[in-house]
Amino acid sequence: MLMCFLILEIGSVSAQKWQPAGDKIKTQWTELVDLANPLPEYPRPQMVRDQWQNLNGLWDYVIVPKGNFTPSVFDGKILVPFAVESSLSGVQKRVGDKNELWYHRTFTIPANWKNKSILLHFGAVDWKTDVWINDIKVGTHQGGYTPFSFDISASLLHAKEQKLMVKVYDPTDKGFQPRGKQVVDPQSIWYTPVTGIWQTVWLEPVEHAYVSHLKTIPNIDGGNVSVMAVTEGTLPNDIIEIKVFDKGEIIGKGKAIVGEEVLVAVPKAKLWSPESPFLYDMEVSILRNGVVVDKLKSYFGMRKISTQRDANGVVRLQLNNKDYFQFGPLDQGWWPDGLYTAPTDQALLFDIKKTKDFGFNMIRKHVKVEPARWYYHCDHEGILVWQDMPSGDGSTEWQTYNYFNGKELNRSVQSEQNFYQEWKEIMDFEISNPCVVVWVPFNES
Amino acid sequence: MLMCFLILEIGSVSAQKWQPAGDKIKTQWTELVDLANPLPEYPRPQMVRDQWQNLNGLWDYVIVPKGNFTPSVFDGKILVPFAVESSLSGVQKRVGDKNELWYHRTFTIPANWKNKSILLHFGAVDWKTDVWINDIKVGTHQGGYTPFSFDISASLLHAKEQKLMVKVYDPTDKGFQPRGKQVVDPQSIWYTPVTGIWQTVWLEPVEHAYVSHLKTIPNIDGGNVSVMAVTEGTLPNDIIEIKVFDKGEIIGKGKAIVGEEVLVAVPKAKLWSPESPFLYDMEVSILRNGVVVDKLKSYFGMRKISTQRDANGVVRLQLNNKDYFQFGPLDQGWWPDGLYTAPTDQALLFDIKKTKDFGFNMIRKHVKVEPARWYYHCDHEGILVWQDMPSGDGSTEWQTYNYFNGKELNRSVQSEQNFYQEWKEIMDFEISNPCVVVWVPFNES
Amino acid sequence: MLMCFLILEIGSVSAQKWQPAGDKIKTQWTELVDLANPLPEYPRPQMVRDQWQNLNGLWDYVIVPKGNFTPSVFDGKILVPFAVESSLSGVQKRVGDKNELWYHRTFTIPANWKNKSILLHFGAVDWKTDVWINDIKVGTHQGGYTPFSFDISASLLHAKEQKLMVKVYDPTDKGFQPRGKQVVDPQSIWYTPVTGIWQTVWLEPVEHAYVSHLKTIPNIDGGNVSVMAVTEGTLPNDIIEIKVFDKGEIIGKGKAIVGEEVLVAVPKAKLWSPESPFLYDMEVSILRNGVVVDKLKSYFGMRKISTQRDANGVVRLQLNNKDYFQFGPLDQGWWPDGLYTAPTDQALLFDIKKTKDFGFNMIRKHVKVEPARWYYHCDHEGILVWQDMPSGDGSTEWQTYNYFNGKELNRSVQSEQNFYQEWKEIMDFEISNPCVVVWVPFNES
Repeated sequence: MLMCFLILEIGSVSAQKWQPAGDKIKTQWTELVDLANPLPEYPRPQMVRDQWQNLNGLWDYVIVPKGNFTPSVFDGKILVPFAVESSLSGVQKRVGDKNELWYHRTFTIPANWKNKSILLHFGAVDWKTDVWINDIKVGTHQGGYTPFSFDISASLLHAKEQKLMVKVYDPTDKGFQPRGKQVVDPQSIWYTPVTGIWQTVWLEPVEHAYVSHLKTIPNIDGGNVSVMAVTEGTLPNDIIEIKVFDKGEIIGKGKAIVGEEVLVAVPKAKLWSPESPFLYDMEVSILRNGVVVDKLKSYFGMRKISTQRDANGVVRLQLNNKDYFQFGPLDQGWWPDGLYTAPTDQALLFDIKKTKDFGFNMIRKHVKVEPARWYYHCDHEGILVWQDMPSGDGSTEWQTYNYFNGKELNRSVQSEQNFYQEWKEIMDFEISNPCVVVWVPFNES
Repeated sequence: MLMCFLILEIGSVSAQKWQPAGDKIKTQWTELVDLANPLPEYPRPQMVRDQWQNLNGLWDYVIVPKGNFTPSVFDGKILVPFAVESSLSGVQKRVGDKNELWYHRTFTIPANWKNKSILLHFGAVDWKTDVWINDIKVGTHQGGYTPFSFDISASLLHAKEQKLMVKVYDPTDKGFQPRGKQVVDPQSIWYTPVTGIWQTVWLEPVEHAYVSHLKTIPNIDGGNVSVMAVTEGTLPNDIIEIKVFDKGEIIGKGKAIVGEEVLVAVPKAKLWSPESPFLYDMEVSILRNGVVVDKLKSYFGMRKISTQRDANGVVRLQLNNKDYFQFGPLDQGWWPDGLYTAPTDQALLFDIKKTKDFGFNMIRKHVKVEPARWYYHCDHEGILVWQDMPSGDGSTEWQTYNYFNGKELNRSVQSEQNFYQEWKEIMDFEISNPCVVVWVPFNES
Repeated sequence: MLMCFLILEIGSVSAQKWQPAGDKIKTQWTELVDLANPLPEYPRPQMVRDQWQNLNGLWDYVIVPKGNFTPSVFDGKILVPFAVESSLSGVQKRVGDKNELWYHRTFTIPANWKNKSILLHFGAVDWKTDVWINDIKVGTHQGGYTPFSFDISASLLHAKEQKLMVKVYDPTDKGFQPRGKQVVDPQSIWYTPVTGIWQTVWLEPVEHAYVSHLKTIPNIDGGNVSVMAVTEGTLPNDIIEIKVFDKGEIIGKGKAIVGEEVLVAVPKAKLWSPESPFLYDMEVSILRNGVVVDKLKSYFGMRKISTQRDANGVVRLQLNNKDYFQFGPLDQGWWPDGLYTAPTDQALLFDIKKTKDFGFNMIRKHVKVEPARWYYHCDHEGILVWQDMPSGDGSTEWQTYNYFNGKELNRSVQSEQNFYQEWKEIMDFEISNPCVVVWVPFNES
């Protein structure tokens, strides 16, 4: 079965060295992983631009003691974006809090991306990430569940081949249980920590002014939708324009000065629900002196989640102003072969469809945050999501602080700030998905 | 009596539809309200520029359920800047926390304002305001007592007529008593909530770099005045210049790099007091490479408020380093016909003069903040002001938050932040008035 | 002895009016102070640029009541940078919390500094400083121990002579003991407060983009050094380049996008210790489109301070991963003739060498922060430093607040903010010195 991969990958020396690690942890999708193009789907369905380049695939990796300088020799190949402990990574090694995991690959920038700003996106990397392009440090990020990106334009060479190095540190290996990942059916693999890149890595060309984040809030009572576009590189007088489409037909538009929310009418809205998960399409543009300088596609659902006391005084959850009994499973989002990462997009979708087939209308996403495509599938398939905050993170990160005096104060402040920062990033990340209806910041406490 | 208005307003179709609402709530100034030009006085006496345009007058209004999209049909005419519940508004309706109040009017920009930045100013709007120009959202503000403005340049059309829409939400209707507006002589109208625009709305052309706020602090012991000019659009090397005048004669000047305070000598200062309310005039300029890019006029009074223990150890309030016994009435600032808004500037002045005639030297401005002209009159007439913070606001705003989990934490933090934000805006607003000598953040608690 | 000064200074009218004040407080270096050029050494050894101009020397001074306007008449001459209470200042007067100390001098800008940004640096001024150039306010600073600077370019005249005025306020005279400066051998002079400029004042020409601060952290386990360059005036795509030298020979380099840390390999590092205080040299540049727009020289030491439990469970301090018993004196840094300020750089160095000669390997710098050159000497000579935070500051600064209501809240918040702000500035200031190994935020508490 694994030979299939190798045959597909003929001509790739590195591919010939790679195979899933271990021998008993396959899923029905394991063999469907395309080694040349794992997880090829567009990774950010809520903000779609025409041009992008997927960097998933076989990269070099090496595990070295924490603090070591940029390595030039590597242990072997790893299949990105599967965590280094997973079978699908082809490595299945632990890193630990004394070591760091380094990645290396090269890439080229398409000729027609010239004069653009080039963004390097990471879907998620657990936990602290440092990135160099051509040996120039371009950025750092903390937080294992949310996407981040860097403008790497200044670090690119005129030459064809660009060198990418990524360093990952994840101290939470030690303190794993307090992270709250409970196990329904314990097997040794379920306790495996997850370290490193576990979602799609990709490149995107943008103009020097561009939309970096969208916050889309439907209002079914008011018959409108509010869109806040966060931007980079805009000028104070730039304007954001939103167009709303119902199956290709424009039904409303609105504008705002950059930094202000755009309100667009959605009269007689088709409501979104698990029974009828209708999604409106949306186009977001930045206008400067009337000229479009950035444009992207998005979508939203018109739904409302609220609470109401019933005749007996009991608080009832309502969907679209009607009592709605939500029931569904606790979903861990662990894959025997990929751990945090589903082997294929079909696998991701399969679970959601199966849950609906069982008659559930809700999933409680337990102490994990999924890739954007998972929420996209829930939006499309129609299933409600209760999102837990992954608990326990941020409490053990700071033990490496150098000075032994005055440390206690710093630790608690930083740990708390880190918790709120990660939680905020997670809420920003999912805020526009109609499927997400409940946030659970503290697990059963 | 009301016919007077209509006769004055002949030729105005809209005016013919408007009249004060109710039948028993007039004051001696009610009939002096100029329907074509209500409250025509310059609204910001501490920062005077030559050019401006008053937008007070008859506007369209409509009350619709909260969250509704921008309306295109209106209930009728409202006389801005009188609150919708007031008689002088011509409406006298309640809005409530389930509804929003929308305003609409058109205006034109004078031809000689071309190439300027156009600011749209609101003296005060209770409580949350959203503003659109030509269907482009230009800004939002929370806080019912303080002035705010938006640069609307990017939203203006080359065409003559510009469309202005304002949405107001005021959830504090429900929780009225906790706002602390005590009533001396209860009548049904005194309990009326105040919603919407209640101070002058106006336009002002400025250069792209301009002074947006002044903080003027006299120092009678040191014989000088400190002026901090807050600016927009300035460059790091721009310079602020202050000139001080005594009845037209320049007596001192000073300069600072933008962002730093300017200190100007005021030797042998004529002290400000209720007995002798002398005001110095001031000119504030922004210089760029020696060229004036913004200029405005202001004023200040040289006075000092301090405390001193007397021979018996009792703390005494001092004015200008001498014991000064302050006595005066609690002043609510409610008008039977205009509620928060005095029918005319003469009415505003009349109350202050009357208080002085009664022999008082102080007014405690109770749980309300007045328009800038009221403090200006106090400065000119010579009366001390104790300013209360309007209490109880900010505690009921957040009940519309969508998510029922993790909400408690957000609510208290946001409520507290809102309280400090509003309080800070109020202090910034009045800090430069010599009449304001005492701040009372918490009412009798 | 003092005649020496005067003879050296022939031709200087002002110098003839100056002499050390008092009669019994000399040190062996007192007579070595060069009146024309006191403390002529480069004041910032960790960030060296080629061009600079020392402004130390005889300035005009005057003590006037707090809040007075810029004076034009002066009491006499003061030798900068010696505190006004010191003998070496030539003044030896107290200022007190009711007064302010003003300084005045003129200076000229070298012709070849044209088109540069001109920074005015203060090594340290105790406590609050306001600065005017040519009667234009250029900046303000609070905190008595750390360096600060202002870009004075916009205030300079095309004429030759530039006028500098400095105002200093130090309210902590009253509350002196709580500052924690304990006295080993009490003499009347040891209790003298320190007010005003007490470190070198100097000018520096820089490009419009320049490095304003360096944070250099060695990592001996990883064989590398991390350098974070804080910059002013840089553009998002500018690049920081670091080169590391071992006695003139380049051994490593690294780059980062501005705002990111640069990691440079230091393989087989020569470790820094009191026994072998080896320092690497470093060159820091800002590159814009490949062109160097700023360049400066620095240095660092490869050392590690950590703790380890020994066989008995006792926590041991380690230097470079080996138990290291640190012992040394409590050092107050008080000079009979100069108070906070050593009379000469040789005097500063002498104390450190003497401490090593006595067999100590550590100095606890008690409730004072020294000039940068002191830490530089410790780095070069090889002695460890425990840095105390000067305690007690910030608790009495706010009594001049005008309004007697709502004051308590402001006081405690501001006092706390001030404490953290000063502490942070002190840590930023010393963070890159290999000699500094322990921070003591609270003295014996």
